[in-house]
Amino acid sequence: MGITRGSVWHNMRLNMKKIGLVGGIGPASTVDYYMGIIDGCRKKSGSPNYPEILIYSIDMFEMLSHIEGKHWDKASVLLSTAVNNLASAGADFAAIASNTPHLVFDEISRLSTIPLISIVEETCNFVLEKQYQRVLTIGTLFTMRNGLYSNPLVAQGIISLLPSETEQQEIYSLFFPNLENGIVIQDDKIKMQKLVDSIVRKQKADSVILGCTELPMMLKQGDLNVPVIDTTQVHINAIVRNMN
Amino acid sequence: MGITRGSVWHNMRLNMKKIGLVGGIGPASTVDYYMGIIDGCRKKSGSPNYPEILIYSIDMFEMLSHIEGKHWDKASVLLSTAVNNLASAGADFAAIASNTPHLVFDEISRLSTIPLISIVEETCNFVLEKQYQRVLTIGTLFTMRNGLYSNPLVAQGIISLLPSETEQQEIYSLFFPNLENGIVIQDDKIKMQKLVDSIVRKQKADSVILGCTELPMMLKQGDLNVPVIDTTQVHINAIVRNMN
Repeated sequence: MGITRGSVWHNMRLNMKKIGLVGGIGPASTVDYYMGIIDGCRKKSGSPNYPEILIYSIDMFEMLSHIEGKHWDKASVLLSTAVNNLASAGADFAAIASNTPHLVFDEISRLSTIPLISIVEETCNFVLEKQYQRVLTIGTLFTMRNGLYSNPLVAQGIISLLPSETEQQEIYSLFFPNLENGIVIQDDKIKMQKLVDSIVRKQKADSVILGCTELPMMLKQGDLNVPVIDTTQVHINAIVRNMN
Repeated sequence: MGITRGSVWHNMRLNMKKIGLVGGIGPASTVDYYMGIIDGCRKKSGSPNYPEILIYSIDMFEMLSHIEGKHWDKASVLLSTAVNNLASAGADFAAIASNTPHLVFDEISRLSTIPLISIVEETCNFVLEKQYQRVLTIGTLFTMRNGLYSNPLVAQGIISLLPSETEQQEIYSLFFPNLENGIVIQDDKIKMQKLVDSIVRKQKADSVILGCTELPMMLKQGDLNVPVIDTTQVHINAIVRNMN
C-alpha cells in the first residue's frame, strides 16, 4: 500500500453513502462487485480515493440448501440477517450480489432495516430502456424455472423466453465445477455459446439476460449473435448511482 | 451460483468463528485475503462450504493522509472504528489486511472491542520458527523507516536488515502506479528482483520479509536468491487457524 500525496487525496475524499454487500454467492462474483463498485466510484468522482464498502460473505451452500428444500422463510431470514448485520456496521443501503436469492427479495426487503437494490428490477429497467422485445433468460435452474425474470418482464409487456427443460439442464451443467469457482474453460465457453445461440435463433430472441452473476465471466458482449445483458454490471451501475 | 447437492453440503456446514477484515488498503490485497481465507478454510475442513467473512473496506487515502501527517491518533480511531463496526456486524475477531497500519496496532487493539491478529507478530513468529538469522525487510517507506519489523525482530535476538535510504526510495518507486493497483509489470518486477538481490548479497541476508501485502503479487518464492516471507500468506494462515 502506498504513502504518497495523501494530504492532497484526502481533500478529495468521497462523501458517498455506504453500500452493504451480501456476498459469497459465490465469492468470485463478490470480487467482481467489489472491484466493479470501486472502479465505478473512481470513474464517477474522477478521484483516486476509494469508497467505503461493507461486505458480509455468507455460506452459499447453507443458502442453497434452503432454496433447494423450498424453505423460503429460512432463506429470507438468513439473507435479511446478513443485511441487518451490515446495517449495524453502518451500511446505508444494501444489495445481494447474486441473482438466485432474489427469488425471496420481497420478503428480505420486508425484514430489512435498510433499503435494498434489486438486480431483477434494475435489469428489467435496463431492458425497457434498451427497448428489447423478445428477451431470453439463462441462469441457474432455479432462476429459469421460477420465473425470476419472466414475471416482471411479462408485466411490462415484454416477451420473455426460456430454454426448454433439456436446454436448461445443459446450460446449468456447464456451471460446474469450474465457472462456479470463477474459472472459465474454453471448451465449456464454446459449448455455452453454441447452445445459447441456437436457442436465440430458434426462439427469435433479440437479447439474452445473463441471469447469474458468474455468467458474465464466460459470456461477454459479442460472444452471441444478439446483445447480452450483464446483470452484474447493471447491478453495480445501480449501486454506484445510489451511493451519491 | 449453483444449486446442487445443497442438503448434503448443508450438513457439512462450517462452524467457524467469524473474521472481520479491515480492507481497502488497497483493494487488490483485500481480494487476496478474501480468496485466501476461503481457500484455507476449505482445505482445512475438507468441505466445499464457505466460511462467513465480514469485510469493512476503508478509503486507503484517508488513512494514508493521517499516517503521512503523523496524526497517529486519527489513524487509530479510523481503523478501530472499522474494527468495532465489524464487531457490531458479528465479527468474533479481526485483522487489518495491510502492513503499514500496524504502526498503530497497539492503539487500535486498545480501542477495539474484539481481539486482533497482528501481521507483524505472526511474521516474527514465522521467522523464529524458520530460524532465520539475518532478515531483510522491504515494504512501504513508512514500514522501512519506522522499524515496524526491526523492533520486534531485534527484541527476539534476530539481526534486522534494511535497505539504504536511496534503495528504500528505489524500492518504493516501483510500487506506483501499477503494483498499488494490483498490476505487475514485467520490467518493474525485474528491476525489483535485481535491486533486492543486490541488497541481500551486500548485507548477507538469509531471508526477505515482503513487508507490504501487495509485494507478494510481484515477488514469489524462487524470485530471489534467498527465501521470501509472504506476510499476506502468513497472516491468512494465522486467521484461518484462529477461525476454529
